[in-house]
Amino acid sequence: MHAIVVEKPGGPEALVWAEVPDPEPGAGEVVVEITAAAVNRADVMQRQGFYPPPAGAPPYIGLECAGVIAAVGADVAGHHVGERVCALLAGGGYAERVVLPAGQLLPVPRGMSLQEAASLPEVACTVWSNVVDIARLRQGRTLLVHGGGGGIGTFAIQLGKALGATVIVTARERKHEQLLALGADLAIDYTSADFVEATRDFTEGHGADVILDIIGAKYLARNIAALAMDGHIVTIGMQGGRTGELDFGALMAKRGSISATTLRARPAKDKARIVRGVRDQVWPLIDAGAIRPIIDRTIPMAQAAEAHRLMESSDHLGKIVLLP
Amino acid sequence: MHAIVVEKPGGPEALVWAEVPDPEPGAGEVVVEITAAAVNRADVMQRQGFYPPPAGAPPYIGLECAGVIAAVGADVAGHHVGERVCALLAGGGYAERVVLPAGQLLPVPRGMSLQEAASLPEVACTVWSNVVDIARLRQGRTLLVHGGGGGIGTFAIQLGKALGATVIVTARERKHEQLLALGADLAIDYTSADFVEATRDFTEGHGADVILDIIGAKYLARNIAALAMDGHIVTIGMQGGRTGELDFGALMAKRGSISATTLRARPAKDKARIVRGVRDQVWPLIDAGAIRPIIDRTIPMAQAAEAHRLMESSDHLGKIVLLP
Repeated sequence: MHAIVVEKPGGPEALVWAEVPDPEPGAGEVVVEITAAAVNRADVMQRQGFYPPPAGAPPYIGLECAGVIAAVGADVAGHHVGERVCALLAGGGYAERVVLPAGQLLPVPRGMSLQEAASLPEVACTVWSNVVDIARLRQGRTLLVHGGGGGIGTFAIQLGKALGATVIVTARERKHEQLLALGADLAIDYTSADFVEATRDFTEGHGADVILDIIGAKYLARNIAALAMDGHIVTIGMQGGRTGELDFGALMAKRGSISATTLRARPAKDKARIVRGVRDQVWPLIDAGAIRPIIDRTIPMAQAAEAHRLMESSDHLGKIVLLP
Repeated sequence: MHAIVVEKPGGPEALVWAEVPDPEPGAGEVVVEITAAAVNRADVMQRQGFYPPPAGAPPYIGLECAGVIAAVGADVAGHHVGERVCALLAGGGYAERVVLPAGQLLPVPRGMSLQEAASLPEVACTVWSNVVDIARLRQGRTLLVHGGGGGIGTFAIQLGKALGATVIVTARERKHEQLLALGADLAIDYTSADFVEATRDFTEGHGADVILDIIGAKYLARNIAALAMDGHIVTIGMQGGRTGELDFGALMAKRGSISATTLRARPAKDKARIVRGVRDQVWPLIDAGAIRPIIDRTIPMAQAAEAHRLMESSDHLGKIVLLP
């Protein structure tokens, strides 16, 4: 088969479409013939050499895909060759075929194309595991999403609204109209406004019960300031630096919590638990039309470099999908 | 009635036994005639002027007591004058009588004296709300308790063991024998040993799933280093400083969480929820003898200054109880 390989970590030009060995399914695994894969910010870090794949994962980049099951290994129940699926991957999405544990498969939502379905597993699992499973967002609470215009952000807006929460996002101003149309209750231009003050004003002093953060150190003090009592910050990216000063007094005054997580490094058993949670709690919302895939554009997989340039520019809105 | 008043914040000598007005029960409240009250570290901070009572709380120091109900306000069901009770307080324990919301009452455990019962509500509510409700300690997990020799620590050891967890404590060496006798699986002398290394060694590299921390900033990096994957640090004191450097990369590598809480400032509704949780999940363990009160000594309430000197020396093991 073909896959995107990184011969030497570096810029987007490091991504090369090359002939590689075909994957084989082990026990509990399936091979999926990929129709579409989607791009995540972690892919850029892996290309740069900062985010090596976990042990046992395919060496190629790519955390989600959709396609058709091409082979089923031993000890896999309930799946068959020819089944249309989408999947959460530990790697290997930028390829014509990928092998993965069967517990990471999800059904293609009702009436959805494989291109659309490819854009959902990673964001759905990331947002659900952090915002619902860890930070316990519920109806009537307020969710603040940093980076509202990306794949994670556009999904988090929709999931938050579908759960009955108030959703506030930070994003560049030219994305605001679309994010408000997606359901965001307030969009804050972080380049010109203070999100702490804007969040407090909009919530009449209450603050955000849950903050989904991709910035890390640079926003630490301000995220605590924007937090509601008993609020929870979940940090899934460190675009604003790795180390920052934590004021325990400020956190304690909010009875606040901070979690920092990644999805990819979780063991397969834990990923399967998250996939089950997503299938039970999020997929019905997608089937019902309350959450839809937001795709910026599709790009031939052999031109993955172009997709990475777009991701790094942050000019996209929603997901970038690759077609092998 | 009499109560301990602080005319001018300062050292233990600021605590003066004086005549004050009697409390009256409002709607949903009861007045308890106090037989015994217990001392907490927060009391020292309040005496020093650093921890003012929350709005609506009695102005006097004291977060827990036991005694007999002397008056019942309107809209209180299920309680009567003459009933023996213990209680979680927002303040007012260093007194002959105290008024409190009925939701903060707990029954006196089976076969227990009021002096013993007075030592339980604050530690039980603090440990349960942080270790079980927030950090979800369960059977088979490992709990690391900093300051294992205090009231919180001796209770946390017993609750952890009663839940089927492995319990590791840090404490000065001369307290080790007693803490191991209480059930601790490992006691670490923090003055001579590295608790990170000792915790890793004892757990064969797994680390602590839950860390109950009273140190804050000074232990932040080491607590993260000692944490198991998906572990949770709950900080309830800042004896090691208020601000410290948080390494999001280190926290993310553990998929870790940090919470910082106080019990006293919680609204009455939230306190009542915690008291219900403690009554349902912790009181049966006390009734069954799996957790017992650990009392260092009793001191006449008028000599509260002596009790504070002892608390500040950290020479005590377990709780210090005051008798009006």
